[in-house]
Amino acid sequence: MNETTFYHSTPIQIRFNDIDGLGHVNNSTIQEYFDLGRMHYMQDVLSGQIFKGDETLIVANINTDFLSPIYLKNKMEVKTAITRLGTKSLNMVQQVINSDSKEVKAICKSVMVAFHKINENAIELKAEWREAISKHEKTTF
Amino acid sequence: MNETTFYHSTPIQIRFNDIDGLGHVNNSTIQEYFDLGRMHYMQDVLSGQIFKGDETLIVANINTDFLSPIYLKNKMEVKTAITRLGTKSLNMVQQVINSDSKEVKAICKSVMVAFHKINENAIELKAEWREAISKHEKTTF
Amino acid sequence: MNETTFYHSTPIQIRFNDIDGLGHVNNSTIQEYFDLGRMHYMQDVLSGQIFKGDETLIVANINTDFLSPIYLKNKMEVKTAITRLGTKSLNMVQQVINSDSKEVKAICKSVMVAFHKINENAIELKAEWREAISKHEKTTF
Amino acid sequence: MNETTFYHSTPIQIRFNDIDGLGHVNNSTIQEYFDLGRMHYMQDVLSGQIFKGDETLIVANINTDFLSPIYLKNKMEVKTAITRLGTKSLNMVQQVINSDSKEVKAICKSVMVAFHKINENAIELKAEWREAISKHEKTTF
Repeated sequence: MNETTFYHSTPIQIRFNDIDGLGHVNNSTIQEYFDLGRMHYMQDVLSGQIFKGDETLIVANINTDFLSPIYLKNKMEVKTAITRLGTKSLNMVQQVINSDSKEVKAICKSVMVAFHKINENAIELKAEWREAISKHEKTTF
Repeated sequence: MNETTFYHSTPIQIRFNDIDGLGHVNNSTIQEYFDLGRMHYMQDVLSGQIFKGDETLIVANINTDFLSPIYLKNKMEVKTAITRLGTKSLNMVQQVINSDSKEVKAICKSVMVAFHKINENAIELKAEWREAISKHEKTTF
Repeated sequence: MNETTFYHSTPIQIRFNDIDGLGHVNNSTIQEYFDLGRMHYMQDVLSGQIFKGDETLIVANINTDFLSPIYLKNKMEVKTAITRLGTKSLNMVQQVINSDSKEVKAICKSVMVAFHKINENAIELKAEWREAISKHEKTTF
Repeated sequence: MNETTFYHSTPIQIRFNDIDGLGHVNNSTIQEYFDLGRMHYMQDVLSGQIFKGDETLIVANINTDFLSPIYLKNKMEVKTAITRLGTKSLNMVQQVINSDSKEVKAICKSVMVAFHKINENAIELKAEWREAISKHEKTTF
């Protein structure tokens, strides 16, 4: 399997209450970090298009490996790439990494589905999304 | 000053990640508990009226004393009372208490303002709210 | 594949701020619900053993399908079962369902690993855990 | 009353799920923002001293005015100042403001108490804390 190349990264601002009773960032908070990276990717690569209008992308599945604990003092970032564009869905790969040591702390693979908010059904990925994502990821899929 | 009598209480379901790095429930999570009590009060006493329509109540000020830490194992509840009805605002008093020991862990006094969502301005408290609250609190204010 | 039989369920208390800007429960909050079910399972089935001492269980992987949105008014519960016991790890399956309609809103399959907090390495599942889980799940694995 | 001069500010990274069902940042999340500013102040001004050792500062009271809603797109920061040093307690004032418009969205006045984690009692503010805070705030209190 080929390594994913990441062209998008978002620094993470850790909050005091991200830390749980075990002394490290809670797993559901790590999911918030992946959401944060996802949102910034959409804003940056798709110019925030999916936050306007009735056509959007929703998360259908996430598959996350928690590799190593994250502490309050760590300087973290979340890296995001889209690795496949289907007809109505796409695949995203993300890593939460320590910006200093480059250690990968958690990996999230997700499936997002194009969705019409009013009709509440899956739709085809819009042509302008495909174009913007392909350009950003430097591939034709 | 008279003691507040509480006629409304909501049991709190503590979540694992409510606990922060200090080993007890985080202060901003305690604020979520007060919000929880507030929401259930509104649902129970006002039949959820403020969640429908354009007229609602918003929180303008909170004043919270954190008296003692709350732990994951504690059985907790939040008690809620409205202690004053003004023309456009009301005063609420709440306590987060240990259901077993009855120890008061945190006290929140808040000011809520009647608000029109579309016009975005303060409005007068609706007559049916006044009536329902007065009846519940067994007072005429 | 056989259907999972669930012998453990935890009612979910939805909080006002569980709802995100899309009007339904945020995906990372749904992960908190699965954590909640996991914690109660451990407390009920393992008598909270994993929260004491140096030997515990940590989540190594989660795989979640988000099937349908959850709203503030829904009465929800999280069902939890352990479906496999390995030497050092176990598999858990969970569902967040609407208690009224029984509709399954989200499914989480997770892998948990036995872990020594001080030595920070994987350990074998303790015999008393295996026994308690097998008894609860009515199977020998 | 004199205006507070703020010599400390922390930019806020807004997360998608900071937004609640009303479409703006939830009140308890705004409290997380104040906590964030508080933590960064302590790290920057006190060199993180209160996060080590047994002597720390805890929040005893918060008094927050919610002036205007915060939206996902807003660029926000939290400004923090300590305005009084007592024997065992201090007063803090904070503002969450829109970095572009400078509009003040919420104000939090809090009382923090010096606390010994092991003995669990209030202690006197440490001399090095007083010195570092006075220097930062450009006053002798």
